[in-house]
Order: sequence, then C-alpha cells, then structure tokens
Amino acid sequence: MEGSEGGSRKQRTLEKLGKLGKGVLQELREGRPPRLKVPSRGTSNIVYDEKHGYYVLGPRYEVRSASSMAQVKKFAQTLCVADFCRELVTKGKFATLREMYYTAEGWEPGPFRDQDESDLLVEDLEAMLGVKREDLALMPEEDGAAVFGDLTVREEGVTINALKAGRGGYTIPPTIDEVKFVKCGAKRVIAIETMGMYHRFVQEEAWKKFEALIVGLKGQAARATRRFLKRAREELGLPVYLFCDGDPFGYHIGMVIISGSAKLAYINHELAVPDAKYIGVTASDIIDYKLPTDKLRELDIARLKQLQKDPRYNTEFWQREIRKMLELGKKAEQQAFAKYGLEYVVREYLPAKLREVEGS
Amino acid sequence: MEGSEGGSRKQRTLEKLGKLGKGVLQELREGRPPRLKVPSRGTSNIVYDEKHGYYVLGPRYEVRSASSMAQVKKFAQTLCVADFCRELVTKGKFATLREMYYTAEGWEPGPFRDQDESDLLVEDLEAMLGVKREDLALMPEEDGAAVFGDLTVREEGVTINALKAGRGGYTIPPTIDEVKFVKCGAKRVIAIETMGMYHRFVQEEAWKKFEALIVGLKGQAARATRRFLKRAREELGLPVYLFCDGDPFGYHIGMVIISGSAKLAYINHELAVPDAKYIGVTASDIIDYKLPTDKLRELDIARLKQLQKDPRYNTEFWQREIRKMLELGKKAEQQAFAKYGLEYVVREYLPAKLREVEGS
Repeated sequence: MEGSEGGSRKQRTLEKLGKLGKGVLQELREGRPPRLKVPSRGTSNIVYDEKHGYYVLGPRYEVRSASSMAQVKKFAQTLCVADFCRELVTKGKFATLREMYYTAEGWEPGPFRDQDESDLLVEDLEAMLGVKREDLALMPEEDGAAVFGDLTVREEGVTINALKAGRGGYTIPPTIDEVKFVKCGAKRVIAIETMGMYHRFVQEEAWKKFEALIVGLKGQAARATRRFLKRAREELGLPVYLFCDGDPFGYHIGMVIISGSAKLAYINHELAVPDAKYIGVTASDIIDYKLPTDKLRELDIARLKQLQKDPRYNTEFWQREIRKMLELGKKAEQQAFAKYGLEYVVREYLPAKLREVEGS
Repeated sequence: MEGSEGGSRKQRTLEKLGKLGKGVLQELREGRPPRLKVPSRGTSNIVYDEKHGYYVLGPRYEVRSASSMAQVKKFAQTLCVADFCRELVTKGKFATLREMYYTAEGWEPGPFRDQDESDLLVEDLEAMLGVKREDLALMPEEDGAAVFGDLTVREEGVTINALKAGRGGYTIPPTIDEVKFVKCGAKRVIAIETMGMYHRFVQEEAWKKFEALIVGLKGQAARATRRFLKRAREELGLPVYLFCDGDPFGYHIGMVIISGSAKLAYINHELAVPDAKYIGVTASDIIDYKLPTDKLRELDIARLKQLQKDPRYNTEFWQREIRKMLELGKKAEQQAFAKYGLEYVVREYLPAKLREVEGS
C-alpha cells in the first residue's frame, strides 16, 4: 500500500516557496521592481471543468508589483506570509490563520486591518503555488470527521487503529496530510452527514457487516475530511458513498465532497472526489420508503431551484431527484428511517442501496 | 482508582423505571386513576443553590393524571417514552432524541406533533427519576470534546490511551458514563474553548510540561464533556482549569462548566464542577499582557450587564473582571497571545496562571 507523501509534500512546498523568493531576489538584482502573479479568484475566472467534474481557476491573473504605491504594502505582506509559512514548514510546526493574523502584529509592513485581509493573502499564496494552506502549515480551526472502521494510520510516531479509538472514532486532524495510511481492511467508505446516524451505524456494526469505514461528517465536511476522503479514494482505492439528509442542504453536503466548491476552485484538485456516490436520502427514497417528512420551507424551494441550474447537478440522477423533491414539496431526514425501528436503516435500507450502486 | 459505575448506573436506572411502572400498576389495581408527579421546571421553580454552587429545582411539581381528558394522552406518551428507554437500557443500546421522535410514529397514543413535544417528555422523565437522559440510553447528537494526555480508558472492551489516539485526541463519546477510567498519569485538567488553542497546547506539549489532560471544548461544552470533567474531578481527583476567550461568551462557557445552566437545573448535580477554576482570558489579562483587542459590541455589553446580575457571578473575582471589561470596552481572544510568538501562551502565560491558582 502506498503511504502518505507527507515528506515529499513538505519538500515540494519548500521548493515552491524558495522559487517564489528567488524570483523576487532575481528581479531586484536585475534592477527591476519585483512582481508577483496572483491567479484571479473572481467569479469570472472560476470555471466548471466538465472533464474533471469540479470547479477550477481559469487563466486570468493579477499582477502585484512592488513599484506601485497602491500595491507595495500588500506585496510586502504577501512575502511576510510566505516567510512565516516557510518557517513553520521548516520547523515542522502548524499555526491557525487566526494565530498568523495576531503574529503579524510584529511584522514590518504593519498589522493587518482585520483577519479577512490576512486570510485573503493566504488564498493568494495557495493559488500562486498550487498548494493547500495545510501544506503551508496553516491549519483550519476545526478538526475533521470521525472515522470508525478497520484502518490503521501512523501519526506523529503513533500507530492508531480506527476500531480502537473509542466509539467516538479516530478524529481526522487538520494536519491529515501528515498522517500515513498503514493498513486498511475495509472495502468502501460510507460518509454520513449527522453524528446521530454515525453512532447508529457504529452501534449496529455497519462497519463490520459492510466492510466499511464509517465517516461521521458533522454537517458540511471540513477541509481535512474532504482531503481524507480523497486520499481514501486515491491511495486506498476505496469507493466513497455519501449518506445525507434528504433536503437541499443534504444534497449539497454530498455535492461539495463530489465536486468541490466554487470558492475553493484553486484547490479542488486536492479535495474533490468526483466519483463519490450519493446514496441517499433522495426524493425517490422518501416515496419508496414512505418516510416521515417535513414540508419544504421557502428557503428549501429557492435552494433546490438554484441547484437545478448549478452545473455540478447537470446529470440525469440529480435533475430527477431535485424535480421530484420540488413536486413532492417534502423533505426527510436520515433518522426518519427510525419509523421502522432503530436497526432498519442498517439492516434493510443500506444493503438495498449498496446493491443498487455496486450492481451486485 | 475507582472505575466508572456504568453497570450499577444501569441497574439503578432500571430500578427507577421499574418503580415508575409498578406505581402506575398499583394504582390501577386499587381502582384509582394512575398519576405521575412531574417536578416543575418553570423559572419560578429553578433555584440557585448557594451551598452547592449551581442551579437546582425547587419543591414544586405538577400532577399528570390518567383521569383527566386534557392529560391522558401525555400521560400515556410519558409511559411509552419510559418503556422505550427501558428497552434500550435492557438491550445495552442507545438512540438519539430524533430517532425516538420518529420511532414514536408507531406508538399507541399516536405520533408527536413535533420533536419539541417528545424532547419535553424526556426532560420530564429525567426530572422525575433524577437521572440523565444518557442514563436512559438517549444520547445527544453531538460528540463531546477532544482529550489529549496521559489517561487510559476502557470503552466497549477496547483500551485507549489518550496520548495514542492521534493529534485529534480521544473523542469523548455521548455515552461517557459507559467509559471506565483505567489509569491516569496527569495531575490536572486544562479545558480550552477553541480547537485552535487546543492544537497549540498539543503541539507545544503542554500536556507533558504541565502533566495535564488537555481538553478541547469546541465552544460551549457538550453534556458529555461536562460529565467527563465532573468525573475527572470526582473520580480522578484532578483540579479543572478553564481557558476561554476573554469576552462575555468565553466567561460563560467557563461558568456553565462551573455552575451548570438554569435550563438543566434538574440534572446539574451530575454535570456541574463547582470548584473548576477560570484561569483566563480575563479583562485583567488584557491589560497585563497588552493583548490585541476588539471593541465590545453592543451585544457584548448587554451580555456583560446580564452576567453582573447573575447569581453565579456573585463573587469578587467575577464582579471585578466583568466591571473591568466594561470599563475597558474591549475583549480579546485566546489566540491573541500569538502577538508574542506561537509558543508564548504555553511558555509564559500558562505557568504564570498555574502559579497563581495553585499558589506554588
């Protein structure tokens, strides 16, 4: 099995940061005012890539020049951020965006006005270098999902089996790319929107019956979770199935894992899992399983109509399920299967769904 | 070391449920309409218990009678909930409140109008029996905090050391009372509001330097986290220190751990840690450490003025720190210490604070 590429990633990041700095020095030595080329992240430069199945950045970029009075401060701050990241990566440390914002109090170009300003520079750097902030040793505030199942990882010199970390599971750390996949006995990944349903799956031993890694997303998936799912797909070769609430927000929690978000177009190639499959709850499930429902609110209807026009939903499956939900005027939660008893979702629903997607 | 009392807890819960059922049967046999006495949870029956340092319920209760047309449905539903819980506890299973709500679709008295209705019946039962919903095998949706440090627990037959569960730490499960504390090498607990700061403490090895269990609260502490902290205090004899943002919401995240909430007055004796100590960030810290600040918003000011009058804040320490913050007109986050470098908070601030509270 392939391991994590934590070491070579680090090397690659340092090389990219080095190249950035050398470029600036070179221009200075040649007597030219140094410039940085920052890929544009405006909506007009965000393109849906049909072939890959996720949003990417188009070819446009902005120039940030040290010779422009309007740009020189931002130019200098960008280099400070790059230097801060280089130091972190070299030392093997991590900092949050918030910590960087406060650390900047002591930087030469002066503190940032607010954190939005420093966050934007981090995005600039990610887009310029084509690496994730996590590779730059900047970690998201929040931990990722919980994982339960037969996966052994190695993290900070410690070996952990995700069956033996407690019911709460192994927590995907913000630094997931530092984690090495050592061994995996599972054959598929089932990612679940709510922790209530995650605990149901753990309790009913779905991980054993379906040889699955059970991933509890805790709502919209964190970056670390998406990275974990992508690595599970690519490095472990596991198919990824998504089980969310049957409402527009559940649909979209699934879709962001599949196709990434427009906002993160510059880094979707590291996060999106284009062949992950949404197994439910669908509008068809609501009908087929006679699930208890709630009425769609106006917000839900508006959201569904947005999704109808979203290029990521431009497939027969999604168009049908969106239309059906609008016609029904109803939505249903994952936990609605409890109508048939607590075990039903694992004993009846899940096997039927897996037969459907795996065609066996 | 004392272990968890999972087994005897279960026994006690079953006895209490049994007694409830037998009482109803007895009244029926004697030809009287059965009645339930439900402690009142209205504000007028919530009393701040000075001696214990948390809110408790007063002596008032309501009677729910099977002979009243207005009450008979609720009476029957209460018994259904009790029966559902008895079955879960007997089988060693857990369900979420949401699952119970959906399961009720098939109950004799008919489904609940909405989940608020079924949730209230659970609170009734908790107050009637004096046990937590977790003891009734109803689990909260969300997991508890992350724990990192030298604590070995036993859960579902698996032994877990919280130094060896990954950077993300050991996740406190909703079913924390089923977890047995096996061994603990730590001398104190440091509970931290944000996961950003939790990861800072893990990274700077604060758990080693201060022989501490580092607990990442993820904002307002979940019920399972509060129960964990209480058990760490009582069963392991560890002092509990709280490190939150220096704003009214940080203050109150600390206070809810110390003194419980009014809403949970009926169960605070199982959750509150009255001698836990708030070590910061305080308004005094903002001044003493010249921390970067944000201006208090109107909402903050209003909240601080509420806290001033709250009986839980009726100590010299809290009155002073609330007053100081109002005078300053400023608040500061935990991560503001990064102004002095990432290591400062663990290298300088924390030792100073521990000397202060531990008087050594």
